[in-house]
Order: sequence, then C-alpha cells, then structure tokens
Amino acid sequence: MNHSDKKNKIQSKKMTSSKNNRSAPVNQKSQSRSKGAGLVKTQYYTFADPPGELILNNGEKLGPITLAYETYGRLNKNKSNALLILHALSGDAHVAGYHTKTDQKPGWWDFMIGPGKPFDTEKYFIICSNVIGGCKGSTGPSSVNPKTGKTYNLDFPVITIGDMVHAQRHLIDHLGIRRLLAVAGGSMGGQQALQWAVAYPDRVAGILPIATTARLNVQGVAFDVVGRQAIYGDPKWQNGNYLDNYTIPSDGLAVARMLAHITYLSEESMRKKFGRELQTRHEEADFITDFEVGSYLRYQGESFIRRFDANSYLYITKAIDYFDLAEEYGSLVNAFKQVEAKFLVLSFTSDWLFNTAQSKEIVNALNVSQKNVSFCEIRSSYGHDAFLLPNPVMERLVAGFINNLRN
Amino acid sequence: MNHSDKKNKIQSKKMTSSKNNRSAPVNQKSQSRSKGAGLVKTQYYTFADPPGELILNNGEKLGPITLAYETYGRLNKNKSNALLILHALSGDAHVAGYHTKTDQKPGWWDFMIGPGKPFDTEKYFIICSNVIGGCKGSTGPSSVNPKTGKTYNLDFPVITIGDMVHAQRHLIDHLGIRRLLAVAGGSMGGQQALQWAVAYPDRVAGILPIATTARLNVQGVAFDVVGRQAIYGDPKWQNGNYLDNYTIPSDGLAVARMLAHITYLSEESMRKKFGRELQTRHEEADFITDFEVGSYLRYQGESFIRRFDANSYLYITKAIDYFDLAEEYGSLVNAFKQVEAKFLVLSFTSDWLFNTAQSKEIVNALNVSQKNVSFCEIRSSYGHDAFLLPNPVMERLVAGFINNLRN
Repeated sequence: MNHSDKKNKIQSKKMTSSKNNRSAPVNQKSQSRSKGAGLVKTQYYTFADPPGELILNNGEKLGPITLAYETYGRLNKNKSNALLILHALSGDAHVAGYHTKTDQKPGWWDFMIGPGKPFDTEKYFIICSNVIGGCKGSTGPSSVNPKTGKTYNLDFPVITIGDMVHAQRHLIDHLGIRRLLAVAGGSMGGQQALQWAVAYPDRVAGILPIATTARLNVQGVAFDVVGRQAIYGDPKWQNGNYLDNYTIPSDGLAVARMLAHITYLSEESMRKKFGRELQTRHEEADFITDFEVGSYLRYQGESFIRRFDANSYLYITKAIDYFDLAEEYGSLVNAFKQVEAKFLVLSFTSDWLFNTAQSKEIVNALNVSQKNVSFCEIRSSYGHDAFLLPNPVMERLVAGFINNLRN
Repeated sequence: MNHSDKKNKIQSKKMTSSKNNRSAPVNQKSQSRSKGAGLVKTQYYTFADPPGELILNNGEKLGPITLAYETYGRLNKNKSNALLILHALSGDAHVAGYHTKTDQKPGWWDFMIGPGKPFDTEKYFIICSNVIGGCKGSTGPSSVNPKTGKTYNLDFPVITIGDMVHAQRHLIDHLGIRRLLAVAGGSMGGQQALQWAVAYPDRVAGILPIATTARLNVQGVAFDVVGRQAIYGDPKWQNGNYLDNYTIPSDGLAVARMLAHITYLSEESMRKKFGRELQTRHEEADFITDFEVGSYLRYQGESFIRRFDANSYLYITKAIDYFDLAEEYGSLVNAFKQVEAKFLVLSFTSDWLFNTAQSKEIVNALNVSQKNVSFCEIRSSYGHDAFLLPNPVMERLVAGFINNLRN
C-alpha cells in the first residue's frame, strides 16, 4: 500500500467513523435525504418568567435560560403524540434531517427519525433540545451572563441531569404539551429519560433508556476524571477563562476526547477497524506519528475541538458522573416508586462503558417496584457507540414499544 | 466521617496502593525485612567494547551503554542457578530488599524474592536490570550522549523489546553466565521473557511470561497512544527537550499515568476501593476536586512525575506497543519454532489489559510448535496489577516450576 493509498484508507475510516456521519453512509445520503426528516430549522426558547430563573438542584439560580431545539412531524390536536429525544454528551438538538439542501451530514439519530422510521414523523411530533450546560445553542458556560455582560466560564453553576430535565420541562410546557407520549435517549440521554420518569411521573407515558445507567460505575467515572484532568492541565484552559483571551485548551480537550472515544468502542470493533495488520510502523514518520489507531484517534480529537467547548465538556461530564438515582432517593427501588410510565430498557453486548449490568440494575429495581418494564440486550460489536448506529433489532423494538403506547 | 478521618483513609489507600509499596503492608514490614532479601546495592555495568556500540533492531547504533542492575543470592560454581527478573513499564532493577536500613519500601517484587520465597535466594542467584530506554540508572533518553555531551532527549534511538533483551544478554555474558535457569517477568517483563526464549533459545531453560502478550491488543495500544499524546500536548514537553530547560512536562505525564492506572485495575477492584458510597461529592471543594477516585488517581499521577522521566515513558510504551512476535516471524508458531525452554504462562481473570485471551495465543502457538508449556489463569480481582500483589497460587506455581527446572 503506497502512502496515498494509506492516506485514503485513513480518510475513509475517518469518514465512516465520525460520529455525526455514521448514520448516513455516502451512497445512501441522497436516498435517505428524500426519505428522511427533510429540512429542519433550529428554534430557540428563552424563558425568563418571574422569578426569571431556574432554581437548580444545588439551590443556585440560573436565568434567563435559552434552549435550542428542533421539532419534526406535527403535534396532533390533543397534543398526545409528542416524543422527546434526549441527546448524549456531545450531541445537540439537531437529531435528524438537514439544515440546508447542501448539508453533508444529517442529524445524529437520522436513521431513527422520519417517515416510516421508529420515531415516525408521520405519526409523532418529535422534539429534541440541546441540554443546558451545552454549547450548541442552549445556555452554557460559554454563554454570556446577562448579569455581568461577560462569558459565564466557571461562574456557570454546576448543573445536574435533573437541572437539564427541569429546563426541558419548561420547553414542553411552552409547547403546550401536558403529557409526552415517550422520552428516549442513549447514554446521557438515557439518564435524562430516567430522570423524566422519576421527576415528572405524570408527564410521560413511555421511557426508553438506551445504553445507559442510573449511576455510572467507578471505572467510567475514573475515565471522565482523567479526561477533565487533561483539560485542567492544559495551560490554555486558564482556569476556565480561555474564551476571554481568545484561545481554547485544544490539546487538553483533544486528549479527553481521544480517551473517551476508546471507551465508546469495543476491543472487537477496534480490531476489525485497525487489526494488527493495519498497525504498520510508519517508518518514514516523525516521532509522534505511529499507529493508525493513533491517527484515527488524533483525528477524532482534532475534529472535536472544532465543534465542542471545553468548559461544557467539564460541566456535562460532571453531570453524567454525579447522576445517582439510588443515592438521591435512598435506593433505586425507592427512586422508581412513583413512576407511572412503561419502560423499554436496551443495552448492547459489547458496551463496556454503560454495560448490561448497569441496565439490569434499572430493570431489577423497576421489577421490584412492580413497574411495567421490558428489557433487551442487543447483540452488537460496536461497543457503547452501538446506539448511534443503525441496528434492525433496536429499530424494531423501539418502533413496537412506541406504537404500543398509543393503544 | 470527619475531614481528617477522610484524609487518613485516602492516605492509607495511597499507602497500600502505591505500586512499590503493595508488597509490604506496614505491619509486616519489620518482619519481612528480616525474612527478605536484605540489604542490596545497585550495581552498574557499562559496555563499550569494540565496536563500542549495540546494533539496535532498527540498524542504528547505541553506546556506550550502562545497565543498572541488582543481584540477590549467590551464583553457584557451575553458574547454573541464575534467574533473570524482567521489570514492567515503570519498574527498575530494585526488585527486592532494601537499599538502606531506613528505607520505607522494599523492591517492587519483594514478596517473590528472598529465603524460602518462590525465587529463593538460598537456592538461586537472582538478577534484575533496568531496561535501556529507562530512567532508573540504565542508558535512556535522559542520559548524556557521550558523543555530544548533551542529554539524548529525542536523539535517543527508538528501541524495542529485542534491544532491551540484547543489552541484558551483554550483562549476562559479563556475569559469566552461559545459561540462565529461568527468566521471569510480568507485563512488559513478560514480553522480554518471550523475547529471551525466541532470541537466545540456548541461553535459558525456563520462561515465565506473566500477565503478558506476544502483541498487545488494539485497545491497549490505543490507551498508550492517548497517554503519549497527553505528553506531546504538554507545552513543557518542548519537543522532548525539556531537561535542557530545567522543566518537565508534569501535567501531560500525570495524565498519561492516571489513564494507564485505570487500565491496571479492574472495575471490581475499583468498586471495592472506591464504591459509590465513597464517591461522595466534595461540597466544599473547588471546581476541580470531585470524586475520591479522582483524588486517588491524581495522587498516582503526581507521585509518578517525581519518579519517572517523560521521554522514557514515550520510548518504553512504544517498545511495548510495537512488540509483535507474530509480525516479526511471520506467525507466532514460527516465532516459537527454535524455542528450547519450558514455559509457565500465567494470566489473571480480571486483567482486561493483558487479558487471558492474549496469554492463550502464546500457549496455543507453543502447543502447535510442540513445546513444553504449562498455563494457568489465576483468579484475582486486582486486574493487571495482580501480578505485583502477593497471590498464593502464583507463588506456588512459580516456585514449583523453577524447582522442576533444576531437576
């Protein structure tokens, strides 16, 4: 394989592996575009009603708050067909379709949303909003604090999954929806789904927590701790004030992303993608370049720093790590006592970050609480990322569960 | 638990978890000191015979080379009782005993070496040397290049496991030992043991590769790539020239170590050590401090930067990652064709970095090559670090295997 071949190979790997692109391989793009959710615009809802602020879990106040959100399909007359999709750490409100006719990539869960798809836009009104603390249009640490006229930076309060969901509830109120048909999300999106069930039991009929946990295991927390440390240790982080000085802690954020990316894949999927036969020595390379898996991870890190804010990364990973329904309610069984919704809990065989054992904790506690819960561990070699990739079993299970909720 | 209790608890965790200290809990120290390998001095062997240099795997020359080494027990008259112990990534020549009467910690494998221990100093002459590329007395990137009078830094050539073993062979020649009774090591030490068997089949009778691999899996390589990236990304690394400017890339090296440390533990051992009930929120803490597992990992990172050189970390992890006997010899079966030694291969159930599957690759290839090999997967919850911790099964198996070699 000559150098340019190798380069092309790496390039094509980058293309098919980039998280936002995975759902639409190049040759299906024009097809899926016509079949899909179509063109969509991001909308913004700012709430600053008296008292003008959201009371956060920790007692602090935050406001006014803007939520970036997108909707797909139509809300029916009795407003009973609304689905709320909840995104993961690096996701955003753009869950499906395209913003412009020339967009190269659809939204991050495009294969799940559209006419005839599991979240069927011909039947349901689908909402997805960027979480607070984020950097994709909703209020977060990179937003301007209206009280000071300056960027929040670390003055932004520590937020929780509960706070994210609380803000979403304001949006759902604003849209005039009394009861959501279902809330669904993977990873941190699944944590939000659980929080919806527990915090607003009468506001949602179905909960789909996918590849998620009611409390991340210690190993997962430890990886996040190291990712955050990589950011803190970058001198350009400047104690969080980097935007004031027109810089970003790019090296630290890239390392955090590279590390996290390994935990999203499985050893099997990495082996398939980079098997030892591809880990050729780059004899001609400099000291830094070595394995192809390294080039791939560096690409992931470099593309991430262009699309994500380092402080948001800190705040959101902390929210993920601190989420612990058992601690908050005394036990997971207690947490689920008031739950009214039906559950479909999904995990993936090769997901070692939010592994099946963590899903089973949720299922067991729901069963002990005599709630209505279905569970499936789906076979996949794609690790934690499996929930972001087309999977006929996941698609059929989700479609069937949502369809049942209407009956 | 009040603050000082908590501090004590963390402190005691630090004490019992620090790699170099694990083998001798405080209350056994005085006991083990009298029973153990006793006082030992590090020795140095510099070889600069014509042509004055070691020809490395990549064709480059390196020399003169100094090896730091320690010995325990006595070499018998016919020099047939010598055991070579091979250290892992962050290890050194100080494998057992104490340097001074007031030392707080014994050598890193003290529980394995001493009178009546598996590597019995009353029967065997035990040698352990620091690898080339290292920073514990042997020639490495932080050494002065005699040709220039300046620190090597990145002028140090890229070295392999083969080069490390080649340098060790010079030491064994120097000690007048024609044939080693056995070579033994865990992790990178096990890679060196395999290399000894393959490169010098007539120079060793028994091989003990423990918690190791003939080629690290892609996930392991990926973690190393991210660790190295953390160092490269630290501006204080200065393209490897930090020592010239009296600084060290402490933040990057600490992150690399924190990350690696997670991979040395198992989820189970982390849960036992930090279970969610200990992951209390530090309400009073600053933004950076959060989970106790974070404090523990940060301590690991901070103590590591005081005892290890960042460039050595780069060179040695590259040697680990590039080691691939199958690639070098066409197949692992081919690699083992000329092997004469008997093997005892050991792995640990909860080691997910150098997992049992990787040990089985070695065992399978040896069996196909019709070599003499025993294998045991030892039950342990301590992850990859298990080989550094007292374990009666490991101790008995190793003692029996070595004893058999004498007969």
